[in-house]
Amino acid sequence: MNPNYVRIFDTTLRDGEQSPGATLTSAEKVEIARGLTRLGVDVIEAGFPAASPDDLEGVRRIAIEVGNALEGEGELHRPVPIICGLARASKQDIDAAWEAVREAARPRIHTFLATSPIHMQYKLRMDAEEVVEQVREMVAYAKSYCDDVEFSPEDAGRSDPEFLYLVLGEAIKAGATTLNIPDTVGYTTPEEFGGLITDIMANTPGIDNAIVSIHCHDDLGLATANTLAGIQAGARQAEVTVNGIGERAGNTSLEEVVMALLTRRIVYSLETGIDTTQISRISRMVSNYTGMPVQPNKAIVGANAFAHEAGIHQDGMLKHNQTYEIMRPETVGLYRSKLVLGKHSGRHALKVHLQEMGYELQQEELDSAFKRYKELADKKKVITDADLEALIEDQSYQSQEVFSLEGLQVACGTMGMPTATVKLLGPEGEQYTHASVGTGPVHATFKTIDAIIGVPNTLVEFNVHAVTEGIDALGEVTVRLQADNSSIPQRTSPQNGQVRSRSFGGYGADTDIIVASAKAFLAALNKLLIATGKLDTANKEAMVTLPPERSKV
Amino acid sequence: MNPNYVRIFDTTLRDGEQSPGATLTSAEKVEIARGLTRLGVDVIEAGFPAASPDDLEGVRRIAIEVGNALEGEGELHRPVPIICGLARASKQDIDAAWEAVREAARPRIHTFLATSPIHMQYKLRMDAEEVVEQVREMVAYAKSYCDDVEFSPEDAGRSDPEFLYLVLGEAIKAGATTLNIPDTVGYTTPEEFGGLITDIMANTPGIDNAIVSIHCHDDLGLATANTLAGIQAGARQAEVTVNGIGERAGNTSLEEVVMALLTRRIVYSLETGIDTTQISRISRMVSNYTGMPVQPNKAIVGANAFAHEAGIHQDGMLKHNQTYEIMRPETVGLYRSKLVLGKHSGRHALKVHLQEMGYELQQEELDSAFKRYKELADKKKVITDADLEALIEDQSYQSQEVFSLEGLQVACGTMGMPTATVKLLGPEGEQYTHASVGTGPVHATFKTIDAIIGVPNTLVEFNVHAVTEGIDALGEVTVRLQADNSSIPQRTSPQNGQVRSRSFGGYGADTDIIVASAKAFLAALNKLLIATGKLDTANKEAMVTLPPERSKV
Repeated sequence: MNPNYVRIFDTTLRDGEQSPGATLTSAEKVEIARGLTRLGVDVIEAGFPAASPDDLEGVRRIAIEVGNALEGEGELHRPVPIICGLARASKQDIDAAWEAVREAARPRIHTFLATSPIHMQYKLRMDAEEVVEQVREMVAYAKSYCDDVEFSPEDAGRSDPEFLYLVLGEAIKAGATTLNIPDTVGYTTPEEFGGLITDIMANTPGIDNAIVSIHCHDDLGLATANTLAGIQAGARQAEVTVNGIGERAGNTSLEEVVMALLTRRIVYSLETGIDTTQISRISRMVSNYTGMPVQPNKAIVGANAFAHEAGIHQDGMLKHNQTYEIMRPETVGLYRSKLVLGKHSGRHALKVHLQEMGYELQQEELDSAFKRYKELADKKKVITDADLEALIEDQSYQSQEVFSLEGLQVACGTMGMPTATVKLLGPEGEQYTHASVGTGPVHATFKTIDAIIGVPNTLVEFNVHAVTEGIDALGEVTVRLQADNSSIPQRTSPQNGQVRSRSFGGYGADTDIIVASAKAFLAALNKLLIATGKLDTANKEAMVTLPPERSKV
Repeated sequence: MNPNYVRIFDTTLRDGEQSPGATLTSAEKVEIARGLTRLGVDVIEAGFPAASPDDLEGVRRIAIEVGNALEGEGELHRPVPIICGLARASKQDIDAAWEAVREAARPRIHTFLATSPIHMQYKLRMDAEEVVEQVREMVAYAKSYCDDVEFSPEDAGRSDPEFLYLVLGEAIKAGATTLNIPDTVGYTTPEEFGGLITDIMANTPGIDNAIVSIHCHDDLGLATANTLAGIQAGARQAEVTVNGIGERAGNTSLEEVVMALLTRRIVYSLETGIDTTQISRISRMVSNYTGMPVQPNKAIVGANAFAHEAGIHQDGMLKHNQTYEIMRPETVGLYRSKLVLGKHSGRHALKVHLQEMGYELQQEELDSAFKRYKELADKKKVITDADLEALIEDQSYQSQEVFSLEGLQVACGTMGMPTATVKLLGPEGEQYTHASVGTGPVHATFKTIDAIIGVPNTLVEFNVHAVTEGIDALGEVTVRLQADNSSIPQRTSPQNGQVRSRSFGGYGADTDIIVASAKAFLAALNKLLIATGKLDTANKEAMVTLPPERSKV
């Protein structure tokens, strides 16, 4: 065991996905897990299996499909990541977690219990002895399933230190191999948090036999500094998320911790297993799938993070890089080549290029991607890798279609009667058409889709941005909606046990942003329909009585 | 002088505005400066007057209009902020800075020179003695104009410490009252940066007669932690920007530093003059005017920063706030009341409500706002303060109109021939109409506007988001474009002296996002036209020969 190796524990799919509106489908989770494996993370916390049957199934798929697959060969070889499931300190939760991760080559169960007076008193309603006993029992119970057990004392930052050492020591005795110290509410300063880890390392019985981990939140903008302070104090696992997503102000950013350790390796003398050239891609993938945009001034992964300004040639910038740059954009995978394929290139050339970008498509997917590529090449002069990513992600996003967009016609403007006509194909291949007037073209389109599909919902977020520069750019749309009635699938929060409605995100890309909006809205509604299992809500009056001329693709 | 008072030096209008695409008009800068005054910042760095005549004029307007105005009376009374202009260490720059700030009640000149070996050798081509001599001369020169002089040793973090103490000591002797220590490239860790400030406090001759200031960048996600470390080491001025905007990964976030000092005042025992309830408003204003969006998981000012999820009642959340919340959303000015005005409310009620929100409108502006409010109330069921802010900002954004949107008609959809017809009013009230086919409705609209106005440009960014929840929400569009030829006004970068093209941002809000896009694009083009002074580029063939039926509003 290299004492200078810091394990990267990615919880994008658990703590990240728990943030409002970041809900992902199982298919999206699997794709992100594959991306995280390419990135080289040591542990993927794939979900909280006790939250709902859907959540359990999502973790299980990752355990099977990603937790056993060797990524690439030769130089591209990567070890299989550990697949981890979160569980409250109860048999039921631990059973669910084990059920979800058991088929992974390297499974882990992560269980937790609060140790701060305020949480013990108001949330758990347990005294200190009861807490110790439950930790002991539940860690041992998890250990009976699985060698690799992680334990977190929730709200460690506000816990009595002596009690904390005691609980952690008992967890180690009961079999915990990783002890994770969370700053649950993002309250500590780097000195405090580093001091806490130093004290834990010094005072916890048996700590030499375990890995100490840290888990910080960014409520005061200090997550990265707190994480680095914890690592300097001896922690060798950092719990992070891509783009720093997560509840409230989010978790510690994977990319900031990794690049700080790399850029300042003279200070830290530590290493990680991360392939930094994958950072930009996984950042984009997580942003698109969760619908959580990254601000331009976000460190490492923001659009402006590297001193690139449109119109200034890269060479000019590189000349100054000693004076103003501390990282090279290539290091995080930026400035990939423009696609040299022309309108007349064949599908083999596209396939090779997509493979270089890391996409392994099935023949059928490749055919569809090629068709869409040709259509795009007809419309747009320069096609970049970013365009191609949007195109592929738009396609894989639409994979679980219930209703699909067959046609859309919109009229809008300042005359004040924006009108949309929508044609949808239903689950049985039947056609629906309907038209509505709205307050704008997006409203008219969504209202029409709602009128056809008939599932009450509230749109809670809507964003559009251009993929590349130029007025002919592809537009990417992300939406997020919530179902309006209580028959909707709910999930339990691991922290407070509250049951709450899920929200559903959708993504669409098109040169026409109204078409992209329709696709994104449909994608979100399809997720909602699949989650509820209700596929028979459609408005029969909108059904076209003629037999459909083409079947569903 | 209270030894525990930390001065907040806001450089949103200088270092923030220098970030790609954040270019602001003079009018916008004045409005932001007013907002910063309401926020209670101690110093407003209003610009780099030597960059261009426009920049000088922008700073001058703030010095006159904001640097002398007492904001409010009684409890609302705020001291006049210091208005600061940046200058390289040259007579020319210092002359320009003084010209710009001299009419403020409390002017400051901020001059700087690099002290790191790499910068002295490659950028300045000066040896150490020459650097010391120039600092001495130029600080004294600035002092001959103005009592309040700030000096920054650029790239202090990579400078030889002994040399740094010497330079700083000479600057103090020559009259500098504030010494600002920048981490120009965002490279240091909190320990290093805190240590640097400790050493400077201990070793610089005469440091007790000056205020030490810190200026950090967020390239590794450590700006807030570095700033707090510097303050703990004795610095009593923090240079920050709203939303942390700035070149690359941006500057230290004002809101993070202020809220960390407040939330953890037990640790820091320090205070600022900031009215935290203004934070949300200034954040939105800066985001809208610069076109730099804030990600949902941004600390303090992100949409998710406070644990509010749609559909969960606030009361339910407040019950848990002791266990999971460390700050109250009201503290930063969130959760303002929904507008209780109905469709039939009068303009007095609107005026009173807008005053409560901090907007002081002239009669004419109020009339226009009222008209637009009524139009919106016809379309949208619930009107929130956020809607009202978007409406007011959309209106003030359009204030410097050259061309205005008279009419727009768009047809688009999956049939593949998106078409826009645009009617514009020109600077003399003349009408233009034109139609184009594009790859999507936005492309068709922008192409048509381009065809009429005739100024070559490249769109470098395009974003849309919904102001509030619901499919009938107002859409906000921000665009950023660059002029395509070299006759365009350029500005000099203070750091590397490079001259580069300005880019121009535009903002529009409407229930129809294509209309909002057209407004935003026109706003950006109008800025470009004003900046170039070229108002005669319009395509005469598109001019409508009939006399215009109504004059320009």
